[in-house]
Amino acid sequence: MPLTGKQLIAGKWLDGRADTFRGVDPAKGENLEPEFTCADEFQVTEAVNAASECFTEFANTSPQKRAEFLNTCADEIMALGDELLERVSAETGYPRARAEGERGRTCGQLRMFADWIVKGEYLDARIDTALPDRQPMPRPDLRSFNQALGPVGVFGASNFPLAFSVAGGDTAAAFAAGCPVIVKAHNSHPGTSELVAQALAKAVEKCELPGGVFSLILGSGKRVGAELVKSPGIKAVGFTGSFSGGTALFKLANERPEPIPVFAEMGSINPVVLLPEALKNSAESVAEGFVGSLNMGTGQFCVNPGLVLGVEGEDLDRFISATSDALAKVGAGVMLNKATQQGYQSGGAKLRDQQGVEEVATGEATGDESGFTCQASLLTVSGKDFLANGELQEEVFGPTSLVVKCRDRDELLQATAALQGQLTGTLQCTEAELGSYGDLVELLRQRVGRIVVNGYPTGVEVCHSMMHGGPFPAATDARFTSVGTKAIERFLRPICFQNYPESLLPEALKNDNPLGIARLVNGEKTSDAV
Amino acid sequence: MPLTGKQLIAGKWLDGRADTFRGVDPAKGENLEPEFTCADEFQVTEAVNAASECFTEFANTSPQKRAEFLNTCADEIMALGDELLERVSAETGYPRARAEGERGRTCGQLRMFADWIVKGEYLDARIDTALPDRQPMPRPDLRSFNQALGPVGVFGASNFPLAFSVAGGDTAAAFAAGCPVIVKAHNSHPGTSELVAQALAKAVEKCELPGGVFSLILGSGKRVGAELVKSPGIKAVGFTGSFSGGTALFKLANERPEPIPVFAEMGSINPVVLLPEALKNSAESVAEGFVGSLNMGTGQFCVNPGLVLGVEGEDLDRFISATSDALAKVGAGVMLNKATQQGYQSGGAKLRDQQGVEEVATGEATGDESGFTCQASLLTVSGKDFLANGELQEEVFGPTSLVVKCRDRDELLQATAALQGQLTGTLQCTEAELGSYGDLVELLRQRVGRIVVNGYPTGVEVCHSMMHGGPFPAATDARFTSVGTKAIERFLRPICFQNYPESLLPEALKNDNPLGIARLVNGEKTSDAV
Repeated sequence: MPLTGKQLIAGKWLDGRADTFRGVDPAKGENLEPEFTCADEFQVTEAVNAASECFTEFANTSPQKRAEFLNTCADEIMALGDELLERVSAETGYPRARAEGERGRTCGQLRMFADWIVKGEYLDARIDTALPDRQPMPRPDLRSFNQALGPVGVFGASNFPLAFSVAGGDTAAAFAAGCPVIVKAHNSHPGTSELVAQALAKAVEKCELPGGVFSLILGSGKRVGAELVKSPGIKAVGFTGSFSGGTALFKLANERPEPIPVFAEMGSINPVVLLPEALKNSAESVAEGFVGSLNMGTGQFCVNPGLVLGVEGEDLDRFISATSDALAKVGAGVMLNKATQQGYQSGGAKLRDQQGVEEVATGEATGDESGFTCQASLLTVSGKDFLANGELQEEVFGPTSLVVKCRDRDELLQATAALQGQLTGTLQCTEAELGSYGDLVELLRQRVGRIVVNGYPTGVEVCHSMMHGGPFPAATDARFTSVGTKAIERFLRPICFQNYPESLLPEALKNDNPLGIARLVNGEKTSDAV
Repeated sequence: MPLTGKQLIAGKWLDGRADTFRGVDPAKGENLEPEFTCADEFQVTEAVNAASECFTEFANTSPQKRAEFLNTCADEIMALGDELLERVSAETGYPRARAEGERGRTCGQLRMFADWIVKGEYLDARIDTALPDRQPMPRPDLRSFNQALGPVGVFGASNFPLAFSVAGGDTAAAFAAGCPVIVKAHNSHPGTSELVAQALAKAVEKCELPGGVFSLILGSGKRVGAELVKSPGIKAVGFTGSFSGGTALFKLANERPEPIPVFAEMGSINPVVLLPEALKNSAESVAEGFVGSLNMGTGQFCVNPGLVLGVEGEDLDRFISATSDALAKVGAGVMLNKATQQGYQSGGAKLRDQQGVEEVATGEATGDESGFTCQASLLTVSGKDFLANGELQEEVFGPTSLVVKCRDRDELLQATAALQGQLTGTLQCTEAELGSYGDLVELLRQRVGRIVVNGYPTGVEVCHSMMHGGPFPAATDARFTSVGTKAIERFLRPICFQNYPESLLPEALKNDNPLGIARLVNGEKTSDAV
């Protein structure tokens, strides 16, 4: 199906009744066909109502049924073929290999959740059998498991047009939980969004699910996005994007008559701490890996290493020098859109203006002014200036990093203690010195979601043990991840059945355990029947 | 140790530097000795700072160590003996049996968490081993588990001076998770609070834990409570109490520079749905059980059945008549304090003033005006008036219940659909008609935390499968319970270790599994070594 520029509302493709816009090729700064129409508030309501109406039906599908649906979503995305990959590249400036890799990640996530839910672990089924003779009071029969929370609003991120967008991790997790989803597409890739929505619509149809299970709406975050979050039928929100966007939605959601959770992953500056022995042994190779991480995806990752902490001296100078040399050879990159480019320029300018900040290297400039290009940049500042100025912790989204030259170990600890919440914290170290920096590691553990040793923060593995989130302002709720199987936990809530007739209990809680899942029965994990 | 009227701040008993107040015997309306002093803002800060300073040490204690601490807390509470039981009765008007039962529940909760954490299930340990040869990218070694969230502020409830107060479920769950706790005592039972704090202080000392692990502060919720929630060192809040109190703290917490989760359990009206067959078969015995539930603890339970839904007719009239007869014999009850009595009177008056509401029965009045007594009350209203007036869903804390006489099954469904979020929903039904009311059950499932069949909502079992919470406004976050082992999940957050040296990993994640716990290794649950 060619691109229509329409909304998908509960299985129907409808012209939006508000404003219009177009995708833009960031490499050329040129508009793309077709024109996209935006939803008005009635269309948002329509999508939410359809989701609410089919919620019970979808929530009560078996894990097997939803697994089939998730796998069909992946199949249909693959079936979009080259058209999808080309549109991703056209709307983001990402090379084809990146588009292909991200498609693989997206489909892999959908299939991972399919595999995960049939295991039944996510249900956290618990049974405490009746104790009719207990004194002084009998115990009733009590059974609980996790059920779907309700319709979920998902906001696509600009920098992952597939993996954190229409059929990305939030949508996959919500579907897996049994929650209908309404996606507010990111304006930076409307064509990609529509293509993926076409695939999901086909999957909904093939699996004979109600159309309300999935809708795609277009429009600005400030208007359509806000309307979505304020809709009474929406029970949770998944968001990946900027701090200002995430906190705006968080505020709106908390001010509703019925507040709802907003899981906003808002990025961070992902400090890389260089410990002395590692620097001494391998400043140059650490620099090489660092530059690769900094420039991956033109620095447009929420796990981009925007901050380096080290103790000043010859070895840190070697790192800075090697990084500067490598950075100078980095070609101009294409950013996702004009707003991202402008944010990078203004954020970088503000950072360079701060007390004590010096620019020590920049990447190659470009002669071509038509595309949304940028130059990589390396800055330095003293530990003292860093500690005195919280603004040095503001994220500059793109390939800019700030090296903090601490006076000594004590100042390095102080700088670590001064860090805001982060998605990741990286340590370059020898094993021996990691052991002797236990105090620093503890400070980091309290401030990050993931600790990386002798690697770099970029590369967020989709797996069971991933934690992609962290203390505020990295995310709005440090207790949840937006990547990996644990991401489903955001969209579930427990319900307890007391003295409920065995024949009418949900499958997960029936005595004979028809799902064959592990359950906590009177405090012991078992797959046995009760 | 006799009562001192002091705060416990990080192991030290200090005079509060703000205002003073006294406990009151609600049965007589008389002040009790001694005078209690309230903390000023610096003392709140002192308590929070002490908690922050010892956070890492406490969070890193082994589950075994914290289990020992929890059991010692229970031992020390028991060692308070009669003095505690007498003070509870004096400050609440509860008979000794209730005080004793609640003490058992409180100690049972502490010991339950002790047993639960040594099993290690709460850690949710996950290991995804490295795949160095994977194409196109190797997979690093990734391991995650739940660590303590940070210092927790706990607000004691008036109606459970032990089980939802100083050493109640929130405190026990936070200690179990490894979080230091600062309790803001409820002003309704300062002596009980101090006695329990004395016990916890002894347990802290006996277990050689830092004093900052536990503090008790006194003062008003509006001042001291707000200061506690706004303290940057506090990372989560547990609250049981009124809607106005819970939502005020929730708002404060969300407006912090770093928002934090507030787990406020704010009560509800706990609808009891009477299905026709059950009414026909046993209107009188249902009424008998209902009156018992309504008057338990003078109706001062968050799971008190404040609403009854049924279809009008002879059988519902039989229920109303039997309930009225039984209620007329209920003696005047003593309420917890003057504010509760006043709230009950004004809330009841407001309810009786609403369109179509009729009072059909009241309990016995009392001649004694010195205590804070109340009369039970039964009201009726038509389904039509109920559907037209959201104010009929406002909780009247105490032994008042409203029977909604629905015209027919359809109106019964509409009334169920109109319900706000509830802690519980009860069904009186035959098994056959429960099956035929699947639509109503689904409506209830979306609106409650616990469904009770042929029982009554009062009686919240402390066990693994309990869900004591529910959709807003019953609680601020429907995804969590404040009772049972799952309550610990509020105070934990995952952290991930990437390529972390085996020798330095936390015990829970080491290859040889020294804790002997079940872990998710490459997607499979196992207690085996890696």
